[in-house]
Amino acid sequence: MRWSRYFWYTSKDDPADAEAPSHKLLLKAGFIKQVASGIYAFTPPAHRVLKKIEDIVRKEMDRSGAQELLLTVLNPAHLWQETGRWDLYGPELFKLKDRNGRDFCLGPTHEEEITDLVRHFVNSYRQLPLILYQIQVKFRDEKRPRFGLIRCREFIMKDAYSFDTDEMSAIISYETMKFAYERIFKKLRLNVLMVEASVGNIGGKSSHEFVVLTDYGEALVAYCENCGYSANAEIVPLGKGIQEEEEEKPLQEVYTPNVETIEELANFLKVPPRKIMKAVLYIVKGEPLMVVIRGDRNVDEKKLEAILGTDEFRLADDEEVRKLLGTSKGFIGPINLPDGIRVLWDNSLWGVKNMVVAFNKPDYHLVNVNPGRDFAYGEFVDVCEVRDMDPCPKCSSPLKVRRGLELGHIFLLGTRYSEPMKLYYRDQAGEEKPVIMGCYGIGISRIMAALVEQYHDQMGIKWPTVVAPFELDIVCVNPQDSEQKKVSEELYLLAQEMGIEVILDDRDESPGSKFADADLCGFPYRIVVGKKLKEGKVELVKRSTGEREDLEVEEAIQYVKELIQKDKL
Amino acid sequence: MRWSRYFWYTSKDDPADAEAPSHKLLLKAGFIKQVASGIYAFTPPAHRVLKKIEDIVRKEMDRSGAQELLLTVLNPAHLWQETGRWDLYGPELFKLKDRNGRDFCLGPTHEEEITDLVRHFVNSYRQLPLILYQIQVKFRDEKRPRFGLIRCREFIMKDAYSFDTDEMSAIISYETMKFAYERIFKKLRLNVLMVEASVGNIGGKSSHEFVVLTDYGEALVAYCENCGYSANAEIVPLGKGIQEEEEEKPLQEVYTPNVETIEELANFLKVPPRKIMKAVLYIVKGEPLMVVIRGDRNVDEKKLEAILGTDEFRLADDEEVRKLLGTSKGFIGPINLPDGIRVLWDNSLWGVKNMVVAFNKPDYHLVNVNPGRDFAYGEFVDVCEVRDMDPCPKCSSPLKVRRGLELGHIFLLGTRYSEPMKLYYRDQAGEEKPVIMGCYGIGISRIMAALVEQYHDQMGIKWPTVVAPFELDIVCVNPQDSEQKKVSEELYLLAQEMGIEVILDDRDESPGSKFADADLCGFPYRIVVGKKLKEGKVELVKRSTGEREDLEVEEAIQYVKELIQKDKL
Repeated sequence: MRWSRYFWYTSKDDPADAEAPSHKLLLKAGFIKQVASGIYAFTPPAHRVLKKIEDIVRKEMDRSGAQELLLTVLNPAHLWQETGRWDLYGPELFKLKDRNGRDFCLGPTHEEEITDLVRHFVNSYRQLPLILYQIQVKFRDEKRPRFGLIRCREFIMKDAYSFDTDEMSAIISYETMKFAYERIFKKLRLNVLMVEASVGNIGGKSSHEFVVLTDYGEALVAYCENCGYSANAEIVPLGKGIQEEEEEKPLQEVYTPNVETIEELANFLKVPPRKIMKAVLYIVKGEPLMVVIRGDRNVDEKKLEAILGTDEFRLADDEEVRKLLGTSKGFIGPINLPDGIRVLWDNSLWGVKNMVVAFNKPDYHLVNVNPGRDFAYGEFVDVCEVRDMDPCPKCSSPLKVRRGLELGHIFLLGTRYSEPMKLYYRDQAGEEKPVIMGCYGIGISRIMAALVEQYHDQMGIKWPTVVAPFELDIVCVNPQDSEQKKVSEELYLLAQEMGIEVILDDRDESPGSKFADADLCGFPYRIVVGKKLKEGKVELVKRSTGEREDLEVEEAIQYVKELIQKDKL
Repeated sequence: MRWSRYFWYTSKDDPADAEAPSHKLLLKAGFIKQVASGIYAFTPPAHRVLKKIEDIVRKEMDRSGAQELLLTVLNPAHLWQETGRWDLYGPELFKLKDRNGRDFCLGPTHEEEITDLVRHFVNSYRQLPLILYQIQVKFRDEKRPRFGLIRCREFIMKDAYSFDTDEMSAIISYETMKFAYERIFKKLRLNVLMVEASVGNIGGKSSHEFVVLTDYGEALVAYCENCGYSANAEIVPLGKGIQEEEEEKPLQEVYTPNVETIEELANFLKVPPRKIMKAVLYIVKGEPLMVVIRGDRNVDEKKLEAILGTDEFRLADDEEVRKLLGTSKGFIGPINLPDGIRVLWDNSLWGVKNMVVAFNKPDYHLVNVNPGRDFAYGEFVDVCEVRDMDPCPKCSSPLKVRRGLELGHIFLLGTRYSEPMKLYYRDQAGEEKPVIMGCYGIGISRIMAALVEQYHDQMGIKWPTVVAPFELDIVCVNPQDSEQKKVSEELYLLAQEMGIEVILDDRDESPGSKFADADLCGFPYRIVVGKKLKEGKVELVKRSTGEREDLEVEEAIQYVKELIQKDKL
């Protein structure tokens, strides 16, 4: 490709409002353009990257025995009503009506449609097991689209679905996909952590996420470097600690005017936050629920959701607090509570001594409160957000907790879809049974962002060779120099002949701009045809390491070809 | 692929309600499944065909210098409002709101979005010319989706857009695409006719369609085997004929009770329909318009639309006819008309003699009406539907008029989009000018239907080798025969090794079913491993011609490989 004729325009300025490196660099390097919030067009070089990602995914899916097909974007409402998700999925589901008033949604995932397709054709154990997949555009009306391709409303996804006769066979399908995913991310050169995960609104029995660690990920993941345990933080269990051995001091009622937060209270009383009992009042489907947790920790609402079995809860507002407890938020506590309010005690409060606690009396706290002596515990649960250095639930070594970006998510669904949609098969005895399903997603366009998150420096992107829009950039420093121009052209043609994906930077730009763009756009290799040509040499720059090397003109392309081949192994 | 493990299920029964052969066969052979009216999922074998079609299109587009990118399905309303098409496009545009109440449509075509993208980056003549394209899912809420993949509401399209500095350069881009399209259809083995076409609601200056002749096409195309002229029938001009030389007979008023149609009137009066003047009353934006045409011809409403410059017209209903003319539909005519009704005379009525005509008096007609003597002509226009044997507008030889299916459509748009969207560039003199655009579509999924329309017989599909889901089907007649089974497996593995796309029919079915499915599904080549194996032979069946040939086992695969290679040339 000659850059002068290619639709690829970089920007000198950093884009406004782009926080994540991938968002910033993909915009600046001209790979994407925003069409609307969370909706991006892919320019020609981005399309090349996307296709390479797709091809790597497709190849490994095919190798695993999965079969590619293509479902539809428009999903009729009645399919989603069969599983109840028409209502359950919530506002992320884009809904619309056709000209005849019939309801459709834009598929955010395709369990319903694939189950409908499979029940149309499959009715015998002989037709199973089966894994089907597609690579398709998907839609989710995210509340807060952000970070460019990281959280989009329109995105490309590979989604696969497995169909088995029994649990054991389903686990084999699940493991097959897990193995394929590991190969995919390895081939994509992504350092991915596989973590246990929650099943969320897809439903099902078990689930794993494939996560790349980055500050702009949506998830918190925890992993143990000692035993290898890893999980989405929201499902890492935190148990009760050992009873504190501390002399029980006399209970005191203290006047604490205008202290509203844990921090203010800790400063006021000169105690560490961990010595305070923090009470949080929720409204769960209209009913009050108090969660009490140690003052230095936070409630993990995903854990709470799992305990309650619903996500229909929210913090009580000031008005509700006043009405239910007769006080304001800073002074609510589990002591001196009116009847009928359920209280959950987080494990972090097991066996504490001499705590500070509010007791629903405005402007007062109790100090040196002790369980048994001053109050009785109720129901203990684990609703505490996991933090760095918390103990591994397997081996108790300190966990690492990091932000991560979910690139893949696999679910063992069981009969969550086959039962309501009546996808049954007849077994060898002629008996009708529900098919056991699994589903397996990979965010294709999100992978593009993840690659940039993992491979960049302050100058720009450093694409791994396997996904780079072009493998080699040839820069002619001074196109007015006829010898430089001639050799650049010759090397360009030779590289093409040798099957290298090459771009010739023949634009009417300064050498500085060309070098800056090469670094920004992230070509793995750059050959600079400049002054050294007088000595028969060109310079090779390797983007990943910054190494520079002088090469004989005659050998340059062959040398680069070998490096590229090595990169692709 | 082993068929026993493949998600591909044919049906023994003809599908109900499928008229077009492609619709019927694609359903019966298990290539597609209807999800909703005009919305189809593609099963794994169909996906293979689609990918091959896409690859052929992509290769020729790339060769032509066009650059692939990927735009978005969700198009924000404001882009479509810039060109006025948000309102003009009509009910075929799927519209929806996001969770914040913002308006979007599902892109049925992408002139707006691509113009927005290009204006974001392009501002100089140095950046032009440029051709961009994508292969993407598109949406049109058709009033009457039908014929399976022929007229869908969700479909795959290749759409390309050209950007040039001036008309001459734009014509070169247009010709480049025309040439690429010719190559594409040739490579797809489709017999396509290129015809002049109307620009419709895309707008622009000139346009051609690429049409495959089939009874289930939506369009009428006319072509001249003498001079090579060809056009969509709706733009074929029909001129005035030569004055009739016939003695003028005396005018008569005739009682014609209860004759409502031209046919009834012709029978009643014993005259041929061509001797009757047929008057049709339209309501155009609320105003009446009478079109008068020869009784044996019909009004082409596309021609009328072009004359009126609007598609906002419809036939008057009975009530309107009564109110405006005081009569019923069978008796309306251009004579004795109340004031204020515009009349258009079709060219077919030029210089006729002794005609039968209604004059808005219930139950009466005039006979032997002659222009000049009995009435005065008004404005003459060409609104007559073209028919087989009508004269070619270029050489007057008889035209052939056939049904055709539009597979490609190219438009020289001019500044229809660049002007309202302010896509300007600076020329060499620094002057700002609008970019001249073209747009170029190919229906990828519709091509699949067109291929079946062109390549089928009563037994099923006959895929050309270049697009077949599998090139070779190996059928083991009796899998209980260990020798047959062994040889089938060996040939299957050998074919795979030799790079043939092969399916082994190892299903637990009768030989008859397997042969029927092979014919139905349309594999170009079939090797039958049966009784002749005792003589060291297998049978080769060529689907396109039905030819059968016995081959030595050892040579069979090499022989087929050569046939396949020849087919792909």
